[in-house]
Order: sequence, then structure tokens, then C-alpha cells
Amino acid sequence: MPETLVAHLRLRQRVLVDAVAPQIDGGRHPVKRVLSDRVTVSCDLICDGHDLLAGELQLDAPSIGVSERMPLARQEDDRYAATFVASEVGVWAFAIEAWVDEVATWRLTTQKRLEAGQELDLALREGARLLGDIATRASGVARGDLEEAVRQLLSPSLSPSQRFAAASTLGVITAADIHADRSSATRSRVFRVAVDPALARFSAWYEMFPRSAGAPGSHGTLRDCIARLPYVAAMGFDVLYLPPIHPIGRAFRKGRDNATRADPGEPGSPWAIGAVEGGHLAVHPDLGTLDDLRALAVEARRHGIELALDIALQASQDHPYVTQHPAWFKHRADGSIQCAENPPKKYEDVVPFDFAGDDAEGLWRALIEIFHFWYEQGVHVFRVDNPHTKPLPFWERCLSEVKAAHPEAIFLAEAFTRPKLMYALAKCGFSQSYTYFAWRHSRAELTAYIKELTTPPVSEFFRPNFWPNTPDILTEDLQFGGRAAFIQRLLLAATLSSNYGIYGPPFELMEHAARPGTEEYASSEKYEVRTWDREQASSLRDVVALVNATRRAHPALQDNRVTLHDTDNDQLLAFSKRSGDGRSVVLVVINLDYHHAQTGHVALDLPALGVGADETFQVHDALTDERYRWRGPRAHVQIDPGVMPGSIFVVRRKVRSELDFDYFL
Amino acid sequence: MPETLVAHLRLRQRVLVDAVAPQIDGGRHPVKRVLSDRVTVSCDLICDGHDLLAGELQLDAPSIGVSERMPLARQEDDRYAATFVASEVGVWAFAIEAWVDEVATWRLTTQKRLEAGQELDLALREGARLLGDIATRASGVARGDLEEAVRQLLSPSLSPSQRFAAASTLGVITAADIHADRSSATRSRVFRVAVDPALARFSAWYEMFPRSAGAPGSHGTLRDCIARLPYVAAMGFDVLYLPPIHPIGRAFRKGRDNATRADPGEPGSPWAIGAVEGGHLAVHPDLGTLDDLRALAVEARRHGIELALDIALQASQDHPYVTQHPAWFKHRADGSIQCAENPPKKYEDVVPFDFAGDDAEGLWRALIEIFHFWYEQGVHVFRVDNPHTKPLPFWERCLSEVKAAHPEAIFLAEAFTRPKLMYALAKCGFSQSYTYFAWRHSRAELTAYIKELTTPPVSEFFRPNFWPNTPDILTEDLQFGGRAAFIQRLLLAATLSSNYGIYGPPFELMEHAARPGTEEYASSEKYEVRTWDREQASSLRDVVALVNATRRAHPALQDNRVTLHDTDNDQLLAFSKRSGDGRSVVLVVINLDYHHAQTGHVALDLPALGVGADETFQVHDALTDERYRWRGPRAHVQIDPGVMPGSIFVVRRKVRSELDFDYFL
Repeated sequence: MPETLVAHLRLRQRVLVDAVAPQIDGGRHPVKRVLSDRVTVSCDLICDGHDLLAGELQLDAPSIGVSERMPLARQEDDRYAATFVASEVGVWAFAIEAWVDEVATWRLTTQKRLEAGQELDLALREGARLLGDIATRASGVARGDLEEAVRQLLSPSLSPSQRFAAASTLGVITAADIHADRSSATRSRVFRVAVDPALARFSAWYEMFPRSAGAPGSHGTLRDCIARLPYVAAMGFDVLYLPPIHPIGRAFRKGRDNATRADPGEPGSPWAIGAVEGGHLAVHPDLGTLDDLRALAVEARRHGIELALDIALQASQDHPYVTQHPAWFKHRADGSIQCAENPPKKYEDVVPFDFAGDDAEGLWRALIEIFHFWYEQGVHVFRVDNPHTKPLPFWERCLSEVKAAHPEAIFLAEAFTRPKLMYALAKCGFSQSYTYFAWRHSRAELTAYIKELTTPPVSEFFRPNFWPNTPDILTEDLQFGGRAAFIQRLLLAATLSSNYGIYGPPFELMEHAARPGTEEYASSEKYEVRTWDREQASSLRDVVALVNATRRAHPALQDNRVTLHDTDNDQLLAFSKRSGDGRSVVLVVINLDYHHAQTGHVALDLPALGVGADETFQVHDALTDERYRWRGPRAHVQIDPGVMPGSIFVVRRKVRSELDFDYFL
Repeated sequence: MPETLVAHLRLRQRVLVDAVAPQIDGGRHPVKRVLSDRVTVSCDLICDGHDLLAGELQLDAPSIGVSERMPLARQEDDRYAATFVASEVGVWAFAIEAWVDEVATWRLTTQKRLEAGQELDLALREGARLLGDIATRASGVARGDLEEAVRQLLSPSLSPSQRFAAASTLGVITAADIHADRSSATRSRVFRVAVDPALARFSAWYEMFPRSAGAPGSHGTLRDCIARLPYVAAMGFDVLYLPPIHPIGRAFRKGRDNATRADPGEPGSPWAIGAVEGGHLAVHPDLGTLDDLRALAVEARRHGIELALDIALQASQDHPYVTQHPAWFKHRADGSIQCAENPPKKYEDVVPFDFAGDDAEGLWRALIEIFHFWYEQGVHVFRVDNPHTKPLPFWERCLSEVKAAHPEAIFLAEAFTRPKLMYALAKCGFSQSYTYFAWRHSRAELTAYIKELTTPPVSEFFRPNFWPNTPDILTEDLQFGGRAAFIQRLLLAATLSSNYGIYGPPFELMEHAARPGTEEYASSEKYEVRTWDREQASSLRDVVALVNATRRAHPALQDNRVTLHDTDNDQLLAFSKRSGDGRSVVLVVINLDYHHAQTGHVALDLPALGVGADETFQVHDALTDERYRWRGPRAHVQIDPGVMPGSIFVVRRKVRSELDFDYFL
């Protein structure tokens, strides 16, 4: 449309559609929701004068051809809203259209004239003109209703109030609404809502190295992982995540404890992907076959667990791509391949892809195909290694293409980098993201961080996934904090964030030996096969199972609607969560001191707990099964980390039974 | 460009340009600044990996063909910025372009290799390739510099550090910057900055009815207004605003105290515009001629005062337009003209224009022409009556067309309506806006309101103009609060807001007689000619002059950078303002109680005052000339409204003179 015509049309659009929510960056990227969410779209409709306005939410579901129009309802002031249920996964699109409702405005002013006993004939004749115009656009019953209203509005044999009543029937109102003149309607730009499966918002991840899952002294296999499923399921996890399962390069293979050279027989790092046996589409022969992988995915799902693979878009120097597709790599001036480096450091066991090389299109397609391939083997969840070293436009295309084919796919971004880059990756479509949680310890650090993550705009596109440990991260807290530290960091991760994960068995076995002066595990599984005695009496598996069962039982813990409650002791962190329908409320109090019992008062935000100021309510500790009756905004707590470093209080309000006694629901 | 090609190009753009500031609504409307402002444009540049980025601010000045490109400098994290001086009024446009700086990245990594003593030949050869590519796009000296650098980079007779140094000269760096490969650069959308004259931000308005400016018993004239200029200038005002000066309709003319009918000889309301003598382009014969108006504008400017006219886009029923352009008005079903109404109320002395009628284009052009016409007579400031009853798109077009021809024009929106509509009008281009200030009294009300108005996004587009009274508003405070109330409301208006105004002489003469039970003046000048005894001993003219002189002397009061300071007495409001360069700092403390002296402590925000924690500083009350030495964050104040209901403390820091004694600057 020519610019002048657009400008001319805009001049007739009296209604300004402003401040549309939810949206980020003016609509450049979609906001995120999960299946079955109720999504309330709201906006300001601003118009001169006092005319009544009408508007609608125009909604396109992911399924092609499925669209809907819902009327906007007026909220306070100039705010309007409509709510839809995100009934399928995929990308929804919506826009707002709004216009002056001339008929409703006429009805209102005429009603006022009628009530004031004013002369009405002129107003009724104007109504007839208005409805007559609309009738020319209508047909069938609607047209008949409108034309009949026009006749009665002009009828000399009826009283003014009878004539007005004839134009105010439900049939006439509906017909006038449907066929209203929208030639001057204002339409917003199109905004998007990416709807993911519920698992994208609420998940508990268990990471393990399959090669350590076998009998002592042997190289574990994917079949061993199948045998391990009951153990993982009993702890209550719903994602089982395996580091890369592909053949491992032999060139510049890393040895035990990240040694520059491997001794003969050492297995190397699984992230050095590709060898003569194959690359990103192959299974390491020592782990088994593609059939084994498919069987593992199927068996996992029977245990209520989704299998997650680690996709690391990099290659060892003996990856088949290196010879088959030299254009996919950067070469130095002497023709040698450019290995990964951060000068002056070099990482010779892996080479990066050249995303802007001469065959960029071929490379991008091949990399995107990796996700399609594994999805089709039954892997619906992907943990993506170091996405921040690949171009953002690649992720925007990759994730949208894979999700277009497989809307159930979930992607966890492993980007420990600058905050804005982490957020940009989330905007490009990652479903979940690793965070700085492992390095947030004090109450001030934790509360600032959780506020940032759970407040718009960040909460509209970034879903945190909290990990107390990973194969790369054994924090000083876990190295030196003992059992209380392990449990406390587990409680924090699992209750502050609806998505969390642990790297086991080192986590539940409280493995805490680090390479001196580092946050790296000593004898890290990244470079060798380990054997773990999972039957140790000190194992935290029962605590983990209890925490996961509590998360599953209480919807409040399945989302990140967090309210912080102040305490008079800096070592006590208190926060509550509440489900969308308000029926599940949980108050968590954590002792941040691993070594001493701490006592203090929580300044309860009673409205956030859904409790009245003078109401006696019960808090029921899901970890210890202890129950307390509280009343008012000041609650005394005492937490001994030697017993349990925190409480997950389920908040129960008193209800009256039909048999006329009180109990706590 | 075809959508697929756009998508393809976007895929090569590694840099995401995000969070551009200043902007509102994603760039839909311009932000506002005034002449000579330093405008800092900032944005996030987000890219994968660790490559160095380059970006530039692309700036188009209002003068056609004047554009500039300024490099962005890196701030903290991924934030970049550039600053320009808004050196002309009008609409500036800017965009951000950003790209990966391959040469700078190469220089940095090669430098690190050099420092680590690594083999450098390969890196130097890569640098030669990089600079060689760039040289093909360069010419003249730049090309020569680049080609020489390539030769030396490849020279076997030089040491590696000599070869590297040859590629790191200022000439080579500059040439490489200028001719860098930008084929994958990302460009933001275009954002706009509307730069107004300084008066748009800092102004003191004096409103008066010209017909009351004559000798007692006579109808005042524009020539009488010329005689009044010294009086207005002596009080320190820089805008003289006259209600409509056009012929006044006789049909349905309003009488004294808003009576439905005027008695013979009554002058009517100046807002009922148009009669047989003419309409919006005519001067009321009793006021004088167009020549008189031009003379008034010229004389006013000689007193440092801009003349402001009230433009009310409505007509009396005997406005010439009514018969000449019937299509510009709505007609009822019986052919009668639709008068202004808010059913069941009718306002028969004025009829609105039909902005969507059959000759809308003709009407719009004629209305816009009104502003052009008066501008050309010397009126550069317009107070626009009830803009919220005319379509927003009309204002967007009207204000942009008038400003395109006359960038010095200033528009004050008189829209006392819903907040979002007031803000929408400001976004459409009004330079200043009336506010709810007259009805904000308590400390809580005032602080909430001033926070809203002085915080982005509102502060980016809405410039408040605070009025203690207007011909329509005589608040209960002024009716019953006595002299202290008048002075206190003056102090609040003149210090909280850099734009403010009073309606005089009623204000300085403390006129407080209202029609009972209303906020309307008794015997309002809106409906009759009044005579004022400006020489009353009780006149506040000297206080007004002192306040305006203080505003002029202290740049801190010429903008709205406000910091609120807490006090331990709810009747004491304390806030400070600071000029952009930090050199002018003023602390205002107001006693909100008109009747009793109030005592308390101000919890000083010392950093906001630019004062150190342990520093002794002086506060000098511009109203009483009293000086105090303060130190630390707790200041005792006592304010007696019988003497002066507030203090405007100029904050002075101690400096050491060249003669080696201390004094307060």
C-alpha cells in the first residue's frame, strides 16, 4: 500500500491501541507460555471524547486455519482485555482491532435522554439512520432484525420508549455488533505467544554419564541406563539427561583430570565429538547402538521420564565432517584447521564450525538436521552446549524450524556468559536456560537474582533452570559445606525454580573432592569412567525423592510466582509461591548457614499467602511432617541445619466441614 | 525487498541491537528534548562469542541533507552509547548500525599471542588477508596505508613484532574502520527525537483576560495589554497567555455567572467563537485589530515575553463556518446543527466540528491553517482548549504540519481528562500539558504524582505545566487557605515543575470568592469584564517576582530532575533538583499546613545534593536570604506559614579561593 494511502487511512483511526501485553521488545520476539495456560491479553484503547469503544482479540492458533475472534472486555480506566486458553503447543499469533462503537454510544446517550424526559424523536430517527446503514451490510435474520428495528424506531404509532426498546433487543444489539462499520478500525501489529509443553515450565532433571552406569570396571552402556531408570524414577525426576553419546575423537584426546594428552585406553571427553566411527548422528560403539538409544527413550517414557541428549555443535579433529565438508570449518593461512581458542589459550581437542563460511547454508541445514534426527529417535528434550558461541540468527532459525516440525521439543541453553547474551538466546527460542544460581549464596544475592528472573520482562521469555552442581561446577559450598550444604542447595534449587536439576550420582552421594583451587571435580567423569556406590547409607536419594514428591504434590512449586518475605535474621531466607488459581500456597524458609541453627521471625506477607490478617492457619512442613498453627504477620522459626536446613511449609486454611467441625484444607 | 531475502539477510546479522534508548512505544512516537540538550543514545549490542563489535549512531538532523555518523563507545557490559548535541529545533531521526569488528578482534588476539610468545607467522598472514580484503574497497591514502601494512605483514625481513606494529598504526586502524565490511551489519529501526525550543521545558505563564485590562468601566483592548506588559515582565513571566480574542457568538450567549441567557450588553464567553464579525482568524472589534495583535506580540518579545493565544476548535452557532461550510458540522435528523452535549446536558452556545464528516479533509486543512495564520502574526505559543475532544490523528497531523513549517511553535494541551488520553495527546506532539496538580495536596499525593511525571517513560514525552489556579479552577485550598495557601501553591507549582503558570490578576490579588459549592470563580471573567486593583498592598506580586527570579537564577529549577527526601513530619515535603551538569542544586522544603508552623527533620539524600557524607555545606534560602551550615544526612527545619510557607535552599559547597580562604560557591 502506498505510504500516502497508509497515512490517509491512519488519520481516520480515532482509537489508539497502546501498551499491549503480554509482549517483549515491541513484538520482535514471542513471549512464552505452556500448554493449557490461560493467557490474558490486555491493552489500552484510547480515544478522544466519551464515545464507547469496541475491540476484539484476533487469535491464530498454531494449527493452520484455526483462528478466533474474542471481544475485549473493559477493565478499569482505558484498559481492555480478553483471555484465551493455550490449547495447543506451538506459536500463536494475536492482534488487537478496535473501533468506536457508534450504536452502543447512541444507545447510552438516548437512554440518558429518555431518563431525563427529553424530547426523543430526533435521537430515535438518528438511531434508525445508524441501524439502517448497518442493515445494508447484513443479511438473513440479522438484516431482518435490523430492518424491523428501523421500522419501529420510525413508527409514529409507538411511544418513544417503545421505539427505543425495539432497537435495544439482544437480536438487534448482536446484529449491530457483528456488522458494525469497521472501516476506521485500528489494528495493532501482530504479537506472538510461544506455547511449550508443560514440561518446559516444570521439570526435574537428572544428569548422568552413561559410561559410568555399568558394572565396576566396565564401560557402561545405554542398556545399563535402562537398568538405572527405576533408581532415577524413584527419586522423582522427569528428565534424564545424558552428555554426548557420540564417538569421541582420538586426535588431541584429553586425559584424566583434563590432561593435555590421554594415555592409551583413556576414553576422552564426550564433548570432543566425532571419530572414524561417525559424528553427531552416531552412537559411541562402547555405549551401544541406535536401537539401544531408542529403547532407552521408550523405557524412560514408561517411567514418566523424558530422555534428554546433549547437543554440542563442535567437532573433534577426526570428525568425518572435517574431511567431508572442509568448508564448514575455518582454516588458517597455512591451510590448517582453526581449532577452538581464546588466545593465548588453545583447545585442540575441539574445532568450531564456521557459521559464516562459503557453505554456511549447507552447514546450518546439517546442524538443524541433527535435532530432527534425534527427535525422530525419541529424544524430545535437548540440552544445548555453549549456544552462546554460535550466532543468534542460527538459533532463531534452528529452533523455529525444529519446533515447527516438532512443537513438543524442549531446549535447555547451557550458556554461562554475559547476562544479556543469555537473555538474547532465550528470546531466540530456548525453552529453558542455565543460570548463575550456583554462585548465589547470601540472602541479598539470592533475593536480587530471583526478583530479576521472576519479574517482567525477563519472566516473559527466560525460564531459569537451577543446578546446584554440574560436571563442570563443584562450588566451594559443596566442597566444604557438608551434608547440610548439599540439602540446602537442593532445597533452594528445587523450590526457588520450577525447573531444576542435579548431576548424579555425585550429587546424592555428596561427592565433594575437587581439583585443588578449582571448581572442577577431581577425577572428573568428563575424562574417565567412574564407578559409584549408590547404596551408601549416607546417600541423599530419599531426601531428593521427598523434595521431588513435594514439588509434584503442590502446584505452587510448579511455576515461579514468588513473593519474598522479610526476616529479622539475614541467615534466614523466606519466600512463598502460589499457584495461578490461588489454591496451592507454599512458604519456604531456608537456613543459609550450613553450620548453626538459626532463629528468627518471618514478616509474613499474609495477602500473598491468601490468609486474612486475623485468621488462624496451619503450616505443614512437607519435609518433617510437623504442623504449626500461625496467626498474624509475625512467625517465629528455628531451623537446625543438622536436622534439615529448611522447611517447605504447605499453607492450609481452616474450612468448615459439612459435619460442622473445622479442619485445615 | 522480498520477505525471503530479508529473512536470508537477517540470518547473517550476528549482532542483535536491543534496548535502544531513549525511545517510547518501540519508536512509534518521538521522545522530546529541547535545543542544546546533550542527547545520549545507548543500546545493547549482543553477539555470540567474544569478538569485538563496532557500531555507529546514524543521525539525521531536521535540516534536510544534514546527517552524521558517530561511533558508539562501549560502556559497561554489552551497552554502547554515543552523544550528540541537539543543535537545532525540529525532528531528529536516528538509527543504530552495528557489526563485528574483525580487524580489532584480530589485533586483540594477535597482541595476546605476541605477549604469550606464541608463533605469530600464521596470525600475521591472516591479518594480511583481512587488511588486503579491506584495501580493495578503499582508495587514495587509505588504500596506500592498507596495502603497505599488508606488504609489511608479509615481509620476511621484519621481526614478528615489527610486522604486527606495521598493521597497528593509527592510519591503518582508521582506514580499516572506515572501509570495514558491513555487509552483515545489523541496522535498527529509525527512532525520532523531537527537539523543541528551550521555552518548551522552562516557562512561567501569566494568563489574563484582555477585556479586563482597560480602565475601570471600559472594555479592555490589546493596546491595554501592551501597557500591562511591564507589570507582567516585572513579575518575571515569559509567556503571556490570552483567552480567545475572536468575535463572540450572540446565539445562546452565556450571561454573568454562566447564566443560560445573557442580558443585553453582556459580553459572553470568549470560548463561544465566531459571529458576524468573523471567526477563528478575526480579532474581536472591541479588543482591537490584527495590527494591534501584531504590535502586542512584538512589544511582548521586547519584554522577553512570548505571546500565547488560546485556540479552541469549536464554534458559536453564528460562526461564519456554520453557513459557509455546513459539512464541517454534524446535523441531526431534522437538519438542525448538533450542538455540544454530554447527554442529558447540552451546551448550546458552542457547536463542535465533525472531524469525520464528508469534507473532513477541508475542515482539517482549515483548522491547521488557524495555527499557521496566528504564527505568522507573531504568536509562537498556543494553548489548545480541550484537545481531548478532537481525534488523536488530527493532532498528530496538525502538530507535525505546523511544526514542520514553524519548528519554534509550542503547544500546551488543556486536557483535563483520563490520564492515558492526556499521555496520548502528549505523544502526538503537544509540547506541554496541564495536569492534576491543582488537586494534589497531601505529601503522599504530591510525591506519587511527581514520581509518575518525572520517571520514564512519562518523562520522555510529557512535560507538565502546573497551575495553582485557572479561570476554571479556584480550588478549596485557595478559597479557604488564605495568603499562606496562595504562596505555598505558587512555590509548589514553580519549583516542582519547570513549567508553571498563574491566572492573574486574581492570583496575585488572592481573589478567593467562589460560586458557592463549586470551584468556579464568583463573577467569573469568563462571562463578564472585571476591574482589578493591582496596586493593593496585599498583592503577592513581589513574592511572585522573587520566585520567578529564583527560577531564572538557578538552572536546577529549569528542568524536572527531582529527588524526594524523606521527612519525619508528614506536613513537610522536601525535594531537591539538580541541573544536568550538576553545578546547580536546590533543595525545596514546603510546609503543607497553611495554618501552623511545622518542625521536623529532613533525611537528606546527600549524593543527590552532590555533597559528601562528612562535608559541611551551606544552604541559602533564596526567599528569606537566610543561610545555614549543614553537615550529614539529618537536617532540622522549622517553617512558619505566617512568614513564608516554604524554603528554596540553594545548596552551596565550600571551595578554596586562590587567596587560600574558604568560601561557599
